[in-house]
Amino acid sequence: MSRLITLTTDFGSRDPYMASVKGVILSRCPDARIVDLSHEIAAGDIREGALFLAAALPHFPEDAIHFAVIDPGVGASRNAIAARFAHFIVVCPDNGLLTLVSRNMPILEARVITNPAVMLKTISATFHGRDIFAPVAAALASGTPFSELGPVTSKLVTLDLPTPERLSTGVIRGEIIHVDRFGNLITNVRRATISDSKPREFRAGKYTWIELSRTYADAAPGSSIVLFGSADYLEIAVHLGSAAATLGLTRGDAVQVLL
Amino acid sequence: MSRLITLTTDFGSRDPYMASVKGVILSRCPDARIVDLSHEIAAGDIREGALFLAAALPHFPEDAIHFAVIDPGVGASRNAIAARFAHFIVVCPDNGLLTLVSRNMPILEARVITNPAVMLKTISATFHGRDIFAPVAAALASGTPFSELGPVTSKLVTLDLPTPERLSTGVIRGEIIHVDRFGNLITNVRRATISDSKPREFRAGKYTWIELSRTYADAAPGSSIVLFGSADYLEIAVHLGSAAATLGLTRGDAVQVLL
Amino acid sequence: MSRLITLTTDFGSRDPYMASVKGVILSRCPDARIVDLSHEIAAGDIREGALFLAAALPHFPEDAIHFAVIDPGVGASRNAIAARFAHFIVVCPDNGLLTLVSRNMPILEARVITNPAVMLKTISATFHGRDIFAPVAAALASGTPFSELGPVTSKLVTLDLPTPERLSTGVIRGEIIHVDRFGNLITNVRRATISDSKPREFRAGKYTWIELSRTYADAAPGSSIVLFGSADYLEIAVHLGSAAATLGLTRGDAVQVLL
Repeated sequence: MSRLITLTTDFGSRDPYMASVKGVILSRCPDARIVDLSHEIAAGDIREGALFLAAALPHFPEDAIHFAVIDPGVGASRNAIAARFAHFIVVCPDNGLLTLVSRNMPILEARVITNPAVMLKTISATFHGRDIFAPVAAALASGTPFSELGPVTSKLVTLDLPTPERLSTGVIRGEIIHVDRFGNLITNVRRATISDSKPREFRAGKYTWIELSRTYADAAPGSSIVLFGSADYLEIAVHLGSAAATLGLTRGDAVQVLL
Repeated sequence: MSRLITLTTDFGSRDPYMASVKGVILSRCPDARIVDLSHEIAAGDIREGALFLAAALPHFPEDAIHFAVIDPGVGASRNAIAARFAHFIVVCPDNGLLTLVSRNMPILEARVITNPAVMLKTISATFHGRDIFAPVAAALASGTPFSELGPVTSKLVTLDLPTPERLSTGVIRGEIIHVDRFGNLITNVRRATISDSKPREFRAGKYTWIELSRTYADAAPGSSIVLFGSADYLEIAVHLGSAAATLGLTRGDAVQVLL
Repeated sequence: MSRLITLTTDFGSRDPYMASVKGVILSRCPDARIVDLSHEIAAGDIREGALFLAAALPHFPEDAIHFAVIDPGVGASRNAIAARFAHFIVVCPDNGLLTLVSRNMPILEARVITNPAVMLKTISATFHGRDIFAPVAAALASGTPFSELGPVTSKLVTLDLPTPERLSTGVIRGEIIHVDRFGNLITNVRRATISDSKPREFRAGKYTWIELSRTYADAAPGSSIVLFGSADYLEIAVHLGSAAATLGLTRGDAVQVLL
C-alpha cells in the first residue's frame, strides 16, 4: 500500500498554496495518499499548530509521514527539519511545532534538511512548504532513507508554553490555551496535573464551579460547566452554546483549580 | 477496491477533531478511502446536517459507508446507531440526522452500537466521533458484519421538521430552511408539492414574484427570482448576488405559493 | 494507477454541492483519486478562480484531470468546455477561467461538451457542476476519448484582466489583484515585467518603499516590505502581520514601480 502523507498548515484553502503542495507531492510520489488534517491553523500561530499536532498525530497509523508547515520565519535562518518518532516522521520548520507532541513521544532522531536532491531545483525565499517540505515528504514516501536528508541535529527549538503552576496553598493556576469551534475553552490543566486530588472549586474570570462534570449534556442548555475534554485537558463548556461567547473568556485568561 | 468512507461533521477544520477521526479510521482500516463531504455543518445543527445528508448521500456509489456526526447530545443518553439502507450504511448518533434521507430511501435495518469490540478501548464522554463512530466505520469497511454492531432497533429519533401546509384557499405555506453560500434562500416547498399546478404568485417578506424562473441567469444582475434549485426545492435567488443580503430574509421566514 | 481528478470550486463546504460532485464522480469512476484544491474561491469570482488555476495547476503530475467550476452563468448560454493542455485536461464553464493558465501553457484543443452520453440523464438548470462537469471528469478518468465530448471550438472566452502599464517615464503602473489569507497584497507586476531593471522605488496608497526584500522575515515584525512572492508576482507584506489590515490597501488599488 502506498504511504500516507498528512497535511497540517495555516495556508487556508482560498489561496493556491495548499494546492501547490499537493501538486508537488503527487508529481514526485504519484501514489502517495494525501490526507488533509487542517489548513485552518491560525495564520502564523505556531502554538496552535503545536497543540493540534499533539492531539492529532498519536491517532495515526504507523509509518505515516506528517507534513506540518506553519512557518512565519520562512526564508530567515530557521532550519527545515525532519523528525523521526517511534511511529511516524514529521517534516516541518524548526520553530517549536514539535514542542508538545514530543513531550509524550520522544523524537528518536532529527535531521536538518540540507540535501538539494530532495528539494525542488529552484527554492523560493517565501514558500518552503512547496519547495522543500513537499518534495521531502514525497521523497520519504518514495523510500528515500531518512539519513539522506541532511545532518543530525540534537537541538530543536522549543516553545515556551505556559504550564500550570501548583501553589503551596493547594491552588493550581493554569490558563486557557485554545478556544475550539464550539466555543469550548480548553485550558492547559491536564487530568494528570490534578491526579488523585478531588478539586473543590474551579474559577475563571468572575465565574466559579464546584462540580466537575462528565460531559457537555450534564448541564442544562445554556449553562456552563467544567469537565475534562477528549484530550484530557480541563475545559469550560456551555451545553448547546459557546462558553467563549457566553462567559466572555478567551485564550490567555487565567483559570484556578482549588484542591 | 478498498471501501469508501465519507465524513460529514460539524467539527470544523481548525481543531484536531476531524484529524483524530481520520487517524482512528486509517489505523484500523489502513486502505480505507476517506472522502470529506463537510466539516462545516453549523455547530450542533442537526437539522442542517439532515438536509445535507438528504442532498448528498443519494449521489454516492453503492457500498459507501457514511460517517455523520453532529452530536450535541454526546455522552448523554442518546444512542449510537448504524443504519443500513439499500445502497449504503450510515453511522451516526440517534438524534434525527436521518430524518430526511430516510423519507426517500427507507432504512432496511438499524442497530444500536453496543459491541465494545468495535469501539476504542477507552471511550471518552465527549468525543464519540473518535471513540465509537470512527472505529465502527473502520470495522464495517474491514468486513465486520453489520449484525455484530449491536441489537436491532426499530424506533429512531426523528426531527419535527416544518412541512409546507396547503390551505383550502389554494395557498401553500412553507418556509426558508437553509441559506447557502451564495445567499440563495432554500425553502421546504418541493417541486412535487406543487405538482402540476401552475403557481400564479410567490411571496416572501414584502416581496412578490409572478414568474417561476428556470435558472439564476434568467434575472438581470442584482434582481431576485424564484426557481426550483438543483435538489428540486423552491428557492429565492439574486443573479450575481446574495438573496439573503439583498432581501433581508433568512432561515425560518415564511414563503407563500398562490396556486 | 487510477486517474487523478482535482476539484477547484466556489461551492464552499457547508452546502452539499461539493459532496454531490464527489458522489457523481465516484459513482461513475469508482477508483478515481479525488484531490481537493479549493472550494473557497470567492462566490462567482471568475478572476480569483483564474488566478488560482494559473498558480496551482502547473505543479500537478501529467495526466491529471482538473475540474474547475466557478459558474455564475450556469444555465444561461455559456458553453461547458473541456480544454486539453500538454500535460493535463481542464473541464470548466467557458467563462474565462482559463485566461491565465493558458498564457503560459497553450491549450492544444478545446471542445464544447455536447455529448449527452457523458452527462447525467437529467440536467438541472442550476448545477452543471454535478450534472455535466462531474460525469465528464469521471468519463475522461475512465478512458472516454477527449474527442467524444463534443465539437472542437477555437474561440474561448477570455477575461479582460488588468495588465501592468509601462509609461515612457520609466514607471510601471500595476494594481493589487489578490489579498491572500496572510493579508499579503499580491499585485499583477511580475518579475519578468521588471526584468533586468533595478527599481528605485515602489509606491502604493500613501506608502513608499525603496528596497526590494527577499523574504517576509527581512522586515522587523509589523513593518511592511515589497518582495516577489512564490509565484513571482510583486507583493506587499507585513512580517508577522497583515499588510491588508496594516496599510488599508485591497484588491484594485494601484501600485507603481519606478525604474
